[in-house]
Amino acid sequence: MVLRSGKSPGVDSDTTRLEAFSDGVIAIAITLLVLEIRVPEEAESVPALWDALRDLWPAYLGYLISFATIGIMWANHHTIFRLITRTSHYLILTNLLFLLCLAFLPFPTALLTHTLGHPDERVGIIVYSGAFLVTALTYNLLWWYAVSHARDLMPDAAPEAVQSITRRFRLGPPAYGLAFALAFINTTASLIVLALIALTYVLPYAARER
Amino acid sequence: MVLRSGKSPGVDSDTTRLEAFSDGVIAIAITLLVLEIRVPEEAESVPALWDALRDLWPAYLGYLISFATIGIMWANHHTIFRLITRTSHYLILTNLLFLLCLAFLPFPTALLTHTLGHPDERVGIIVYSGAFLVTALTYNLLWWYAVSHARDLMPDAAPEAVQSITRRFRLGPPAYGLAFALAFINTTASLIVLALIALTYVLPYAARER
Amino acid sequence: MVLRSGKSPGVDSDTTRLEAFSDGVIAIAITLLVLEIRVPEEAESVPALWDALRDLWPAYLGYLISFATIGIMWANHHTIFRLITRTSHYLILTNLLFLLCLAFLPFPTALLTHTLGHPDERVGIIVYSGAFLVTALTYNLLWWYAVSHARDLMPDAAPEAVQSITRRFRLGPPAYGLAFALAFINTTASLIVLALIALTYVLPYAARER
Amino acid sequence: MVLRSGKSPGVDSDTTRLEAFSDGVIAIAITLLVLEIRVPEEAESVPALWDALRDLWPAYLGYLISFATIGIMWANHHTIFRLITRTSHYLILTNLLFLLCLAFLPFPTALLTHTLGHPDERVGIIVYSGAFLVTALTYNLLWWYAVSHARDLMPDAAPEAVQSITRRFRLGPPAYGLAFALAFINTTASLIVLALIALTYVLPYAARER
Repeated sequence: MVLRSGKSPGVDSDTTRLEAFSDGVIAIAITLLVLEIRVPEEAESVPALWDALRDLWPAYLGYLISFATIGIMWANHHTIFRLITRTSHYLILTNLLFLLCLAFLPFPTALLTHTLGHPDERVGIIVYSGAFLVTALTYNLLWWYAVSHARDLMPDAAPEAVQSITRRFRLGPPAYGLAFALAFINTTASLIVLALIALTYVLPYAARER
Repeated sequence: MVLRSGKSPGVDSDTTRLEAFSDGVIAIAITLLVLEIRVPEEAESVPALWDALRDLWPAYLGYLISFATIGIMWANHHTIFRLITRTSHYLILTNLLFLLCLAFLPFPTALLTHTLGHPDERVGIIVYSGAFLVTALTYNLLWWYAVSHARDLMPDAAPEAVQSITRRFRLGPPAYGLAFALAFINTTASLIVLALIALTYVLPYAARER
Repeated sequence: MVLRSGKSPGVDSDTTRLEAFSDGVIAIAITLLVLEIRVPEEAESVPALWDALRDLWPAYLGYLISFATIGIMWANHHTIFRLITRTSHYLILTNLLFLLCLAFLPFPTALLTHTLGHPDERVGIIVYSGAFLVTALTYNLLWWYAVSHARDLMPDAAPEAVQSITRRFRLGPPAYGLAFALAFINTTASLIVLALIALTYVLPYAARER
Repeated sequence: MVLRSGKSPGVDSDTTRLEAFSDGVIAIAITLLVLEIRVPEEAESVPALWDALRDLWPAYLGYLISFATIGIMWANHHTIFRLITRTSHYLILTNLLFLLCLAFLPFPTALLTHTLGHPDERVGIIVYSGAFLVTALTYNLLWWYAVSHARDLMPDAAPEAVQSITRRFRLGPPAYGLAFALAFINTTASLIVLALIALTYVLPYAARER
């Protein structure tokens, strides 16, 4: 939560409590996801319970994608607040806006879980991918705001570090936008795109990462 | 949570754990709000599910106003604990009283959500605005206590910074009091006032903020 | 969470993460209490909803006593970890034991809420006061362990500070024991004792506090 | 959360926010366990309620084992991040993978609670011990990754400290694997092994611990 490399002890750092609060909200939102996986009613036999557990696959899938996506958002939040060392009124506000969307994600996840495999699954996937799209947009808004006030908010950040993050984040909204658009056409394709976005983060990063 | 500007490493700071605990409680209360948005029962058709999701508007509205108000209370808590650098027994107690009220807010939010649009919505809005009024009062009690023991609790704070916060906070209780009074007369007007209080924080601050 | 007076930056402090984790568990347990206050079913009229809200008094009372007691336990935990600056395997274990009991408290609170005013309320109050008694005992165990290893765990603490806390804590277990014993005889008296224990913390402290 | 012995203030430490987030997720997962202990329906008489409370033993047992195991995982996480002082992309990812499994544990705990003592309890214990096995494996993956990049991630750690942890952790996966295998043969034996793993941590450590 506190002394991080790049922010030596002698350097003013305004952002620690903002980060702590964000960590709290993100940690809670990500952990509440499991509450949407409901234990099946008492089964009559062992095979019946196995079947019931298998039928929970939409809940497992929703948990997996949402946990991965929120986890990656946390990791990105962590990355940008290594550069942002000062806060301002509007930085706090855009961060609250981002948290407002992120803390809402357990609801679309639950909706996805309830609709997947049913005739109304399209609704679930539209809302789910739409919620991720909006959250990604607020997240980019936070970064755009920080970049456009870089002199005040990131006095110690190297310009290349800022540009590298900007380049990387640029891909988020179109990718989530694609998942959202696909939800109207082909629900499976939309889910695959959402899973790929999470996987993309895992794989090709290796090369670029120090 | 820790080293913050204005509290240089060499300076005693008693308040870090109090802030960490408060951050935790506020972060959890704000994130629990989403649990009150319940996924509709399985719908028979896609349009039926869209309708059911639309009928959840009171839940969305309650989430929005409560999240914004609690988020602003966190931001204010953050602001005043940049000045308060020492704790005392009664500071801890008034802070606990504030948290007692704040952690209760998911209940009136749920009540609002269940009653809005029903004949008994007046009850929901009276309780909701009343809960915010009481929370705002305990919050001001915390600040008033800190101000009246400023020599002990805020040894390093500039008097102007203290006075500026006092001036600003003075408006909170009457504003929430107005929303509470309006709830008995016109429920919609009461909700509009609550939303305006949150918006007020967003807008005119720009000028005064460093 | 971090740099606290009495623990200057140059001094080793092992306990910060233990405190952070404890803060997290306590903050969550205290905030989960509100989930036990369930919104009444849709009422037929405004007076009917007011009645239903009034009938929730056991839930409000349980929330109040549990929040106050857990809040005070947090404040005490905060007090003793200003003195404890090093951890050991058994300190971590006794702290986990304390957290195990504390994180369980929402269940007896819910049981109290469901039974108060019903014929089986004695069961609820026995379990409730018993849970607080056990939690207070594990809490004292934590302190007793720290005191008996003071040389290792509290190398910088003044002996008078240690003794003052010991004197104060000595009263906890008998007081909760009294509430527990009374639960078998007179349920109201038991609840009054529990409320008084919380109030005692608020009132006579004033004089002794620096 | 922050300045810990072995990480002096002047030394770069990348891991504080990763630890804070992990603390948050673990603290929430461990505290959510209590929500699975459901208050019995209103009982007709005092003895009936005592019986109903006694019948909740699977819930108490699940709470106990899960709390102890998650608590020990936290303590171990705490231990290894005293050595790990720098992060990398893949450290963050393996840590997220570990948290993904850990935050899932309330679900198998609830499943155990619902099935224990019923004909389908084997399913509950297989899933429960299997979930702990997988979590222990991801936990060891995290440590293995850190060890194999020790030069980058643990520049200040003494090799003996690293080897001592490696030796200790080596026993985890086979122990949980045994519990998992036993679940197919003898459910009680599997539970006893899980309880013994937790107890092992408590007892023989005394000697080795500083």
